[in-house]
Amino acid sequence: MLKNDERLDYLLKENLRIIQSPSVFSFSLDAVLLANFASVPRAKGKVMDLCTGNGVVPLLLSSKTRTFIEGVEIQERLYDMARRSVEYNELEGQIKLYHGDLKDLPKEIRKDSYDTVTCNPPYFTTSHEEVINPNEHLAIARHEIYCTLDDVMRTTSGLLKYGGKAAFVHRPGRLVDIITSMRSHDLEPKRMQLVYPRVGKEANILLIEGIKHGKPDLKILPPFYIFTGEDYTKEMRALLYDE
Amino acid sequence: MLKNDERLDYLLKENLRIIQSPSVFSFSLDAVLLANFASVPRAKGKVMDLCTGNGVVPLLLSSKTRTFIEGVEIQERLYDMARRSVEYNELEGQIKLYHGDLKDLPKEIRKDSYDTVTCNPPYFTTSHEEVINPNEHLAIARHEIYCTLDDVMRTTSGLLKYGGKAAFVHRPGRLVDIITSMRSHDLEPKRMQLVYPRVGKEANILLIEGIKHGKPDLKILPPFYIFTGEDYTKEMRALLYDE
Repeated sequence: MLKNDERLDYLLKENLRIIQSPSVFSFSLDAVLLANFASVPRAKGKVMDLCTGNGVVPLLLSSKTRTFIEGVEIQERLYDMARRSVEYNELEGQIKLYHGDLKDLPKEIRKDSYDTVTCNPPYFTTSHEEVINPNEHLAIARHEIYCTLDDVMRTTSGLLKYGGKAAFVHRPGRLVDIITSMRSHDLEPKRMQLVYPRVGKEANILLIEGIKHGKPDLKILPPFYIFTGEDYTKEMRALLYDE
Repeated sequence: MLKNDERLDYLLKENLRIIQSPSVFSFSLDAVLLANFASVPRAKGKVMDLCTGNGVVPLLLSSKTRTFIEGVEIQERLYDMARRSVEYNELEGQIKLYHGDLKDLPKEIRKDSYDTVTCNPPYFTTSHEEVINPNEHLAIARHEIYCTLDDVMRTTSGLLKYGGKAAFVHRPGRLVDIITSMRSHDLEPKRMQLVYPRVGKEANILLIEGIKHGKPDLKILPPFYIFTGEDYTKEMRALLYDE
């Protein structure tokens, strides 16, 4: 079932397993934070995860809702890993994955029909000073090679019902681009949380949720800290290990 | 020197005094946080405070820079209080106040010439659900009666040099409006800090600084907390009392 350098890793507290590969894709804390932050319907409804990678967000969401979850990934290699992880966990009844491009979604995916869309998009513009990763799989996951922030927002808005919710994880440095793009695609930002590596440091992760055609008024939640000294904080441990 | 119900209050650690009146205008923590947050040139340069009220921000800034500071206030009654406070503190050599409308500034105020612009603008749109204060002075200070956020951003951008800095204090609920308006007037947000009343609560004050024609990349500073239990935090006491 595993190919090449793939590993079958534990997916934290959820008692799930996930296929990862250091040379292709491994999930990060960002995905864990996004799955925790996103508002999903409890039982009935439809959830879509764009840029789903190895399917980490759908897998994590499956433990907090009984609703149906879909995911789209453009890289066939990652889509294949995600699909096999869903099978391994016997979640084919709850999670359906598509290999496709979010700019031109498969026909089965209906517009204006989703309650929640989540996305952990590529963080860096292709003009970013940082050298683009020579590993193609990692470069596509991290840089806006196949989709820009505007593409993500346009597709997200198209998929959501009126009043549906979209949750994103990104870098604070791009907040202005994110907010501008969200509003221009009728995704009004309503809830935001900043994640700080530790007390006294600048924020390094941004979580933001918008409502399609929502009324302007943003709530900024209490900050979330990752580390205290050399250890995870209590709040981070609670997400990871269900302590 | 004092009129009607005016008081001569201590302006905190700065060893200054300020004229206030409960029925006209009293400064708030917001002004103290803004004066602390704003980047001002150390000695040479020009600083402008828009919506200056009773002159609290220029007075506070005078203790952190030797640069020349100006302020504009539309309400004659507040302008008059501010002017008398500057005289009382013998700061006429460093602070100059204007009675005027920021949408049509006095001729002496030159465009494209300021290093820093600060502003603590009215927070509420006039369509805001909250009833507009029946006290005219307070209503003008709190609601967008004489100027909107867009007016503030347009004037600020017009006054700043290329590369000049603009600092604002506002409510988190308006962050999306603020960011959208700043960018549309070439004031790229570069530095932001969220102020939380205490640990575990949502942010209630927003500090944001933009650079005229700056390159997109926002830094989000560590959170600032006001209270711990019934007391001010150490960081808040440091601002207020120079402990």
